[in-house]
Amino acid sequence: MKTLTVDLGDRSYPIFIGQGLIDQPELIQPYVTGTQVLIVSNTTVAPLYLERVKQTFSDYDVQTVVLPDGEQYKNLEILNRIFDVAIEHHFDRKCTFVALGGGVIGDMTGFAAAAYQRGVNFIQMPTTLLSQVDSSVGGKTGVNHPQGKNMIGAFHQPECVVIDTDTLNTLEDRELSAGLAEVIKYGLIVDYPFFEWLEQNLPGLLDRKADVLAEAIERSCQNKADIVAKDEKEAGLRALFNLGHTFGHAIEAGMGYGVWLHGEGVSAGMMQAIYLSKLMGDLTQADQDRAAAILSAARLPVLPPSTDDMPNERFLALMAGDKKVQAGKIRLVLLKAIGQAYVTGDYSPALLERTLTEYR
Amino acid sequence: MKTLTVDLGDRSYPIFIGQGLIDQPELIQPYVTGTQVLIVSNTTVAPLYLERVKQTFSDYDVQTVVLPDGEQYKNLEILNRIFDVAIEHHFDRKCTFVALGGGVIGDMTGFAAAAYQRGVNFIQMPTTLLSQVDSSVGGKTGVNHPQGKNMIGAFHQPECVVIDTDTLNTLEDRELSAGLAEVIKYGLIVDYPFFEWLEQNLPGLLDRKADVLAEAIERSCQNKADIVAKDEKEAGLRALFNLGHTFGHAIEAGMGYGVWLHGEGVSAGMMQAIYLSKLMGDLTQADQDRAAAILSAARLPVLPPSTDDMPNERFLALMAGDKKVQAGKIRLVLLKAIGQAYVTGDYSPALLERTLTEYR
Repeated sequence: MKTLTVDLGDRSYPIFIGQGLIDQPELIQPYVTGTQVLIVSNTTVAPLYLERVKQTFSDYDVQTVVLPDGEQYKNLEILNRIFDVAIEHHFDRKCTFVALGGGVIGDMTGFAAAAYQRGVNFIQMPTTLLSQVDSSVGGKTGVNHPQGKNMIGAFHQPECVVIDTDTLNTLEDRELSAGLAEVIKYGLIVDYPFFEWLEQNLPGLLDRKADVLAEAIERSCQNKADIVAKDEKEAGLRALFNLGHTFGHAIEAGMGYGVWLHGEGVSAGMMQAIYLSKLMGDLTQADQDRAAAILSAARLPVLPPSTDDMPNERFLALMAGDKKVQAGKIRLVLLKAIGQAYVTGDYSPALLERTLTEYR
Repeated sequence: MKTLTVDLGDRSYPIFIGQGLIDQPELIQPYVTGTQVLIVSNTTVAPLYLERVKQTFSDYDVQTVVLPDGEQYKNLEILNRIFDVAIEHHFDRKCTFVALGGGVIGDMTGFAAAAYQRGVNFIQMPTTLLSQVDSSVGGKTGVNHPQGKNMIGAFHQPECVVIDTDTLNTLEDRELSAGLAEVIKYGLIVDYPFFEWLEQNLPGLLDRKADVLAEAIERSCQNKADIVAKDEKEAGLRALFNLGHTFGHAIEAGMGYGVWLHGEGVSAGMMQAIYLSKLMGDLTQADQDRAAAILSAARLPVLPPSTDDMPNERFLALMAGDKKVQAGKIRLVLLKAIGQAYVTGDYSPALLERTLTEYR
């Protein structure tokens, strides 16, 4: 087992990475407060792991909520089901919520924990690659609004993150690839050696070799933890994580949530950011080709939807609706080089327009 | 104008108290961040003050939301209307929400600000005595769940609190009295000289004399600010604010929300706590009579509903709220003397039972 720490002063917490961790009460129970545990999962993950996780918490008064699976259910109405169960069973302020599932479950459970009685503790047990390397670390929680992703939420750090790499064995190929988009992202934004390692080790990742997956997860989480420790509330540096996300969120919203997976939108979106960076003279055609090659090898889309599906105007409007807009200017994460991202609102709108037109 | 400060380190903020403050842009605008202002009000307050407050923020991109008036609308569904407007108008992370109304508007606007894009700034402009002396100070925000008051929320401090005492001129007599219950509470829990001052000045308060109201508000807010500064997240001391509230919430819930106003329930509830304190040998009959006299003079109920309306068993169950019905375990705020409250779970259940039976 590997242990990383997210260093946030008195809100610091460990990330445990290894095989078979969800069955280890002695590892997890020290992070439980109170006597009541509410496990939140979804209809896909619950049949696979819920009974085992209930066993892990068998020393506590355990309740469970199983939510429908999918980004389209990440809203205030479904969130309320978590509150319903907690209140029905008289959960007090010292209780612990446990998120067992992917990013949607983690985000919703975290926000429910942030808001229930104005804040209770929670534990992340992410079961998808995407959530293991991204959303379960960093304390961003929330739900979607019909007009925008993650518009309603809180910064609320977990007590610990338990990444059981065995859970990836039951993950669909498409979901594994979606997670790889975020893994590759860390290489692109801040870690060129990791990008090279990924180019070498992509076959092992696709074959789900446990040691290769564990190393990719560890290096991803380490990159994420380092940046979160420096910028918990996204005042600056943390925005780098959004490489491809402003484009990607527009794709997800424009095509209807759930049609493109988040990681798929991010993959095409990162390529759009890279294309724009090339137009700005920072990246070469060779850089673009390398990025496209590794994302394609990871079985990810590199091109956004066609202009028929998403005309430029609609694309821009959806990008502008994204929360990273400050005073009307769409701020984007772009690359100076592979492994060197920066945030800017200072680019030519004409080049963005060209990107939307040409890179399809 | 008087200015108090709630001392919370880098989240400290001022409370301004005086006449005509809502018309003073030079006072308020320094606390606005960003260029977008969303004023949230209700159908009772908006016709009286919304246009004036819009003028105060006329240097900004101002949007408004007018919610239905009443505790029964303090829920996630109505909260969503605030998000709808903010998102529709592309409000960014630097925007400012303004709560213009009573406690319900303040709690909802504050929680919306806590959750919108994971947290934006907000300003409290409370227009009822109750919210001016209680809910607008301290950062507790939230909405109700059908099974429990304020079960969903956040600690989120405002940038400033603007208390315009002129707004009390339009307040109904019954609402003014409800606010006085919380004013008198501060005297009872921690401030005997204030209690004596209130005994002297109650006629002036009921006549709505501006200088008397301003002093009562100032001394109430000062007491609240002092305690909040020592215990922001209700680990201990802050629980003193709950004098009469466990009884009072039971009355509110038992009689149906909206039948008894919050301040009315608190008034009768404080008398029940005082009666129990007398049975425990800490207060005298004279203390009880003084408390009853000032609350009655403030046109507040001193007796809880009859045993016909709320039998002891039902009363206890509602007081126990989220806990099992074990009378001895319900923590209560009681008095050692007028001006000296404490929190305890260590009292005889028989004396609580006697209080419920005898003090009706």
